[in-house]
Amino acid sequence: MHAQNIFLPIKKELLECYAFWIGILVLKTCLMIIQVGLSRVFYRAPRNPEDGAPFKAKVITHETVERNRRAHLNDLENIPFFIVISFLYLLTDPSITPTQWIIKIYVISRILYTVSYTVMKSIIRIPIFEIGLFTNIYLSLSVIYHFS
Amino acid sequence: MHAQNIFLPIKKELLECYAFWIGILVLKTCLMIIQVGLSRVFYRAPRNPEDGAPFKAKVITHETVERNRRAHLNDLENIPFFIVISFLYLLTDPSITPTQWIIKIYVISRILYTVSYTVMKSIIRIPIFEIGLFTNIYLSLSVIYHFS
Amino acid sequence: MHAQNIFLPIKKELLECYAFWIGILVLKTCLMIIQVGLSRVFYRAPRNPEDGAPFKAKVITHETVERNRRAHLNDLENIPFFIVISFLYLLTDPSITPTQWIIKIYVISRILYTVSYTVMKSIIRIPIFEIGLFTNIYLSLSVIYHFS
Repeated sequence: MHAQNIFLPIKKELLECYAFWIGILVLKTCLMIIQVGLSRVFYRAPRNPEDGAPFKAKVITHETVERNRRAHLNDLENIPFFIVISFLYLLTDPSITPTQWIIKIYVISRILYTVSYTVMKSIIRIPIFEIGLFTNIYLSLSVIYHFS
Repeated sequence: MHAQNIFLPIKKELLECYAFWIGILVLKTCLMIIQVGLSRVFYRAPRNPEDGAPFKAKVITHETVERNRRAHLNDLENIPFFIVISFLYLLTDPSITPTQWIIKIYVISRILYTVSYTVMKSIIRIPIFEIGLFTNIYLSLSVIYHFS
Repeated sequence: MHAQNIFLPIKKELLECYAFWIGILVLKTCLMIIQVGLSRVFYRAPRNPEDGAPFKAKVITHETVERNRRAHLNDLENIPFFIVISFLYLLTDPSITPTQWIIKIYVISRILYTVSYTVMKSIIRIPIFEIGLFTNIYLSLSVIYHFS
């Protein structure tokens, strides 16, 4: 018996929704890098001795910079896994409208998460975070079930 | 000459194996987030001042929380790259059975890694870690060779 | 109306270029892990108490190890997002030659980044970093525009 090649079948509407919103999510993460960088400049808290040398700024930790970094690290802990698991979920032939909502809600929750963490500094970020976490858990369970 | 579009050809058995085990891997990383979060609650070691305020807990570092965080960071350093490089490896038309074993061994090694790091606290985690590292190196060399 | 499945159309030359250079990028990140690990051994700066116990080395922070770790963390903040957004960009039916250059320049900039950070310790790393950052921003804006 010869092994059969398949291609990756994805509904057109879902691929377009996925690519658009993942584009937003990657852009959001790039802006997070800029936010951390600008806060380093603004609070004169360089990352390395050579960065601060031209401005006679020493390496220090500043609470606002550290808060931005924590928000950024949280992005790294969650977003790449959503990108992967939602792509695999698209291969399970899901219904269009609910899947589009899952993608949109996840991306918007991550943007609100950053705002609640770095601007509002409010623990409302925790339920917002859980939206994203439970989305990832739901998607991975669906993928595991479908492909088992 | 007109450029030719191709689609991504993957053997059916390999795509199913890949999706199932990547689902397990993403779920494992979500559980790692929960493990870190619960240890923060249990040891009263909040991440931010606002998180601890309702419980009158100050921001402290606790060795168990930090250990969980190190295990988590190690996941971030390895797992996303495996997810990508093993997907590209599937496009090199590899044999089915050995490739399924590579995927299974990697995922199981990452689960054992977390256990050996956070529960056993044993340096047996280092050879377990190297299984995953050498898997990634082998897969990336195979992909580079195939597509060069 | 029935939803229509599509497959992922990518130009052959671009898929080959992408897979080859992403292989290089994943290998580079594996080598970064080894660079951090060897610097821990060389400077006797273990990550955990159990790692240092056989060598009677205590957990300390060493500036060279920390510098390698910062370079590594910067990889994690950027490379996975490039891998994703450049893949989605390939689906926008881009011209072959400029897209091949974007991929090559990004990968080479990340290698030069690590060298400028950990070997040269020079702030030339900042413009090199910005090449990669602006590449990611450009690609995500292109993807958002194409799929909107």
